[in-house]
Amino acid sequence: MPAVESRVELLAHTPDALSLIYAAFRQCYHKGFVGDMWPKLLAGEVDKAKQAEFVSSVLESGHTSPIEHVSFTFAIEGVSRALTHQLVRHRLASYSQQSQRYVDGSDFDYILPPHIARIPEAKERFERFLDEVGSAYRDLKSILEENGRKGPKANEDARFVLPQAAESKIVVTMNCRTLINFFEQRCCMRAQWEIRDMAMKMLALVREVLPAIFDVAGAKCERLGYCPEGEKFSCGRYPTRD
Amino acid sequence: MPAVESRVELLAHTPDALSLIYAAFRQCYHKGFVGDMWPKLLAGEVDKAKQAEFVSSVLESGHTSPIEHVSFTFAIEGVSRALTHQLVRHRLASYSQQSQRYVDGSDFDYILPPHIARIPEAKERFERFLDEVGSAYRDLKSILEENGRKGPKANEDARFVLPQAAESKIVVTMNCRTLINFFEQRCCMRAQWEIRDMAMKMLALVREVLPAIFDVAGAKCERLGYCPEGEKFSCGRYPTRD
Amino acid sequence: MPAVESRVELLAHTPDALSLIYAAFRQCYHKGFVGDMWPKLLAGEVDKAKQAEFVSSVLESGHTSPIEHVSFTFAIEGVSRALTHQLVRHRLASYSQQSQRYVDGSDFDYILPPHIARIPEAKERFERFLDEVGSAYRDLKSILEENGRKGPKANEDARFVLPQAAESKIVVTMNCRTLINFFEQRCCMRAQWEIRDMAMKMLALVREVLPAIFDVAGAKCERLGYCPEGEKFSCGRYPTRD
Amino acid sequence: MPAVESRVELLAHTPDALSLIYAAFRQCYHKGFVGDMWPKLLAGEVDKAKQAEFVSSVLESGHTSPIEHVSFTFAIEGVSRALTHQLVRHRLASYSQQSQRYVDGSDFDYILPPHIARIPEAKERFERFLDEVGSAYRDLKSILEENGRKGPKANEDARFVLPQAAESKIVVTMNCRTLINFFEQRCCMRAQWEIRDMAMKMLALVREVLPAIFDVAGAKCERLGYCPEGEKFSCGRYPTRD
Repeated sequence: MPAVESRVELLAHTPDALSLIYAAFRQCYHKGFVGDMWPKLLAGEVDKAKQAEFVSSVLESGHTSPIEHVSFTFAIEGVSRALTHQLVRHRLASYSQQSQRYVDGSDFDYILPPHIARIPEAKERFERFLDEVGSAYRDLKSILEENGRKGPKANEDARFVLPQAAESKIVVTMNCRTLINFFEQRCCMRAQWEIRDMAMKMLALVREVLPAIFDVAGAKCERLGYCPEGEKFSCGRYPTRD
Repeated sequence: MPAVESRVELLAHTPDALSLIYAAFRQCYHKGFVGDMWPKLLAGEVDKAKQAEFVSSVLESGHTSPIEHVSFTFAIEGVSRALTHQLVRHRLASYSQQSQRYVDGSDFDYILPPHIARIPEAKERFERFLDEVGSAYRDLKSILEENGRKGPKANEDARFVLPQAAESKIVVTMNCRTLINFFEQRCCMRAQWEIRDMAMKMLALVREVLPAIFDVAGAKCERLGYCPEGEKFSCGRYPTRD
Repeated sequence: MPAVESRVELLAHTPDALSLIYAAFRQCYHKGFVGDMWPKLLAGEVDKAKQAEFVSSVLESGHTSPIEHVSFTFAIEGVSRALTHQLVRHRLASYSQQSQRYVDGSDFDYILPPHIARIPEAKERFERFLDEVGSAYRDLKSILEENGRKGPKANEDARFVLPQAAESKIVVTMNCRTLINFFEQRCCMRAQWEIRDMAMKMLALVREVLPAIFDVAGAKCERLGYCPEGEKFSCGRYPTRD
Repeated sequence: MPAVESRVELLAHTPDALSLIYAAFRQCYHKGFVGDMWPKLLAGEVDKAKQAEFVSSVLESGHTSPIEHVSFTFAIEGVSRALTHQLVRHRLASYSQQSQRYVDGSDFDYILPPHIARIPEAKERFERFLDEVGSAYRDLKSILEENGRKGPKANEDARFVLPQAAESKIVVTMNCRTLINFFEQRCCMRAQWEIRDMAMKMLALVREVLPAIFDVAGAKCERLGYCPEGEKFSCGRYPTRD
């Protein structure tokens, strides 16, 4: 039952991502069939820098839907149930999360918030509490099993004591358009530290694969050039709109 | 910090729901403009039973999209964060949930699973644990505030100790098509008792408003006439497919 | 087979729209249950201007999801199939469109583009052509029926001659968040004249019902204070970002 | 301006598709982190037949969301605007379609419905009409250009004469779950011949990549074992429910 940190692995992404986006954009504006152009794109006969430039210029004019054709799938662990509850509110995405019904929680890991870690008294209180959670879970599970509720049925009830801090694992797929929106919301200093930290790791991974799309991605302010959150909430990195 | 039970209130729904669905279906199949037929529908000049019959017969033939025009908005309290995490996985819906950042959790309510309530030893252990959670939350919050993290910032960190059992409140809007799918999944005996209980309350409310659509709604088996969950998982109420 | 103009009727919308949005926002930030506050809101015990002000201030801070709880359903006629093909690309919405299979197209109406209407020679050529379409449809349908393909089956084949200009009727439901995005795209001078004209009619209707949300809605530039379309595409009403 | 037939090319799909779905399912039910298992899956250390069997058995029990992690991108040409208008009604998908504004339509191709092709008199009438469309488009475009509306602006108006039969090209991305639903609707004999023909071509392509998922895909009846369309509409291949 140690405190753990988030880990984000990129499992898979649509191959030939830049070319696919380029092909989709081209299909909108040109007479020919991208099915015929595709082998040339795969063979590297169209300059990558030119593809990136074309994609950037069309994106800038506000036509963003073709970037949806490319998806990224991440495996994520070391994040709290507090985080995953926020994460799955992003609806244009796909999730497969570790079940607290089918997976026993007797020795669950947990996430230690950095502001608590920084204050020895708080850290001690937090960790003492986490031990109590472990005891409560195991006690309840064994009482339930003695009373005939076994395995998943016992987990399903005992999980009610697991804290928001309890670690979860989740597989997430988002397309580029969802990712850009996700980064706008979650790389912002107003987002909670945990999901911001995870979002920054995701951003680093997709930037490496597809810099033409993600080099300019991040919190809303980075694209807008100002902070849309208003005086009251702004972190001060960018001036507010007024 | 008492144990609480779920409460579901229907705040609002699209008015003249049956007529709206009838009008939308008619627009697909008829030459005229439903904008012209609408005042007659509002004036009650078209028999409700005939509307219901028309709607049922088209639905049965597999054309279900027009029921999306009608939405229902519920206010729900007395449900656990375990439940809301399951609930918001239904993506074709809208949610506004009570924030554990902006709302202090010092005297949170909680949900007591019935299988735990039924076993005195388990209930005692559960309730003793819940008291410990309250202490831990209040201790952490006061340490954090002494160290300069106030209000929402303190809540945001202290909430990591709150259990899955912690009560939440949420406003939910679903259209009829989402609702039917939701009931298929969540009125099933395989769903967790808590979300099934809530789903049954929602179903009772919408049935009253729109029996033509919801009289036949419920777990998948009720529509199919057999249980699609397979031998291993079936509750036995309906025979499996084989 | 006359030229026709678009007509947009508001069939229905979520009742007590401002209060519902206000309640949903409140549920996020306050301890109490909106299910308890709701009767007071319905009884008019909370000042509407205060509700509007609260909603505006939270919206401005970037929290927009609660406006999804309110939907509007429109009946639209006098629009071309060119327009409806663009319209249904807005995916977070519900559509019920008049079928060209179940509705005979022998004397279809059509949309006359204003730039064609303005040039007598173009108008004459366009109208002469539309007559030819009518003949072709009727000829084909009667040949098909003589050869055993009747009713919907004959329509389904004969419709292949119907032009993009052919009039269609459609029932559309969008929630406030989709509507705001829709207006951003389609009230813009870069949108095609026909869908812009329809969007402006929709905007006028929802503004009357819910000014707190829609008074500031419209093309992107109106919210941003600049045109994001770039030098090359900007209509010049607002300066571009640079 | 010849009659053309549909062509469907598979441009790209999520790599290691079966393993990715297997990994996502595993993450739901097992304690370990799929990020750690992934290299073993890529190295072929887990038997493919066992993966397929596991995936099938969980799918059968009604847990279908993990197949969403895998997407397929198709380039499609030789289909009518009638078809693409039906296609884009499938909302959980991404589309990039050839623009009739940016691409000149003076010598457009077209789709000849087989029931028309089969009747010489109908075919002759249809083809004579298509010639008339070409003339009308070119006449209108040249009048518009003489009057100062050039390029895309002229296309945008002239396109109003283009028929539903006019050929279009489109890039489509759907995940496995959307595809299964799409095939259920569109491989059915009740679907229009053109979209059914295209759906069958898509099905053949994805079956080759991912037989574990798509071997059992197709019209609804093939999974259900009966036809849900009712006596009136059933094609008779399977018995109706009663």
